[in-house]
Amino acid sequence: MAQFTLYSHRGPGPNPLKVAIVLEKLGLSYEVVALDFGDDHEKGVKGKFLQLNPNGRVPALVDHQQNDFVVWESGAILFYLAAQYDKQGKFFGKDVQEQTITMQWLTHQLSGLGPVQGNVNFLHHYWKGAYGEEPQKSAFTRFEGETHRLYKILDDQLARQSSRGSQYIALDRPTIADYSFYAWVNIASFGKVDISPYTHVVKWLETINADPQIKAADDKLPKS
Amino acid sequence: MAQFTLYSHRGPGPNPLKVAIVLEKLGLSYEVVALDFGDDHEKGVKGKFLQLNPNGRVPALVDHQQNDFVVWESGAILFYLAAQYDKQGKFFGKDVQEQTITMQWLTHQLSGLGPVQGNVNFLHHYWKGAYGEEPQKSAFTRFEGETHRLYKILDDQLARQSSRGSQYIALDRPTIADYSFYAWVNIASFGKVDISPYTHVVKWLETINADPQIKAADDKLPKS
Repeated sequence: MAQFTLYSHRGPGPNPLKVAIVLEKLGLSYEVVALDFGDDHEKGVKGKFLQLNPNGRVPALVDHQQNDFVVWESGAILFYLAAQYDKQGKFFGKDVQEQTITMQWLTHQLSGLGPVQGNVNFLHHYWKGAYGEEPQKSAFTRFEGETHRLYKILDDQLARQSSRGSQYIALDRPTIADYSFYAWVNIASFGKVDISPYTHVVKWLETINADPQIKAADDKLPKS
Repeated sequence: MAQFTLYSHRGPGPNPLKVAIVLEKLGLSYEVVALDFGDDHEKGVKGKFLQLNPNGRVPALVDHQQNDFVVWESGAILFYLAAQYDKQGKFFGKDVQEQTITMQWLTHQLSGLGPVQGNVNFLHHYWKGAYGEEPQKSAFTRFEGETHRLYKILDDQLARQSSRGSQYIALDRPTIADYSFYAWVNIASFGKVDISPYTHVVKWLETINADPQIKAADDKLPKS
């Protein structure tokens, strides 16, 4: 039996991948349960799953070696895996200052690019179906503009890191902040976000994608 | 000289208050620098402040007793203060599982209620001025609907906690997750969000507001 159960869903949605990547990196075993978006009791995120995560979103993780300890919110899951299973702080930080810098970029992704690019995706693919009217021009102005502002900040940070000899966002090595951004940057095209002007981001994405453990994680998640 | 410099701004905006509250709770000394929203080199969040925080947002914190260590993103600042100055884990957690539960609710605020209620505020107060057109009805449907969904989740969590004998969101005592939510719940009326149906939230808000250190923190921040 695998140590962990990772709840994911069918179809696009980047956050479960963050967790699968870090589980691969730490060499931890997990089985994936794929949920649907509806309220089906067995299979839906709004079914019995709400007893695990009252927010009704994936990912959620259950640690069967810790009395079935449950954690949801991708950022908190990454924190848990690092704090519990990465005692040298390879993917989080070896001291409080390193951990804080990682947490700074991690929470910047959670509160910034995630919600904003998520709204861009929704505008392009789901808004009209959900609300029966086309989104207005200013909605694209707001959320696409903010998305590009955030990609510029990430690009500038990767340039600063490069000048210090690092290819990664927060520290001198890949951290949970990189994997948190990766899951969103890698699907920018789904929201028709052109990241080609952000040359440091493009290069960083290539570096991450060249890691075979990234593909191993992605291969374990249901696609549709 | 105070140990910390806390960058805040004039006018509404809840996130610097989170940091001031935790500094008060930990008995740490800080001076507040008030910035404006523009690009004035000395006073604007888009001026020389960008050298401290390339995201151009407040709060940012400088720890003068740690070689002027700089951290931005409110959630990362709260993590730093807890990890560096709250060694018993009173406001974060005494072990990894407690810390993870706190982090779960903290990141739920950062990625959920913050961005969503922020968009509600923007719809009511700033959208037309920014984009020259009134926001469409479905924008209110989306962001107000999601805000109320999140308040219901918070209300249900406080009900569960009450049945376990706790008045607080994450643990058996107030944590950085409570102060992170507090800063947003306390200004719900600015976005015309009626929280009166969420009776556990209302009671929790009264409990937090009765704490004199909350007022002490708020009094130190510039209002306008």
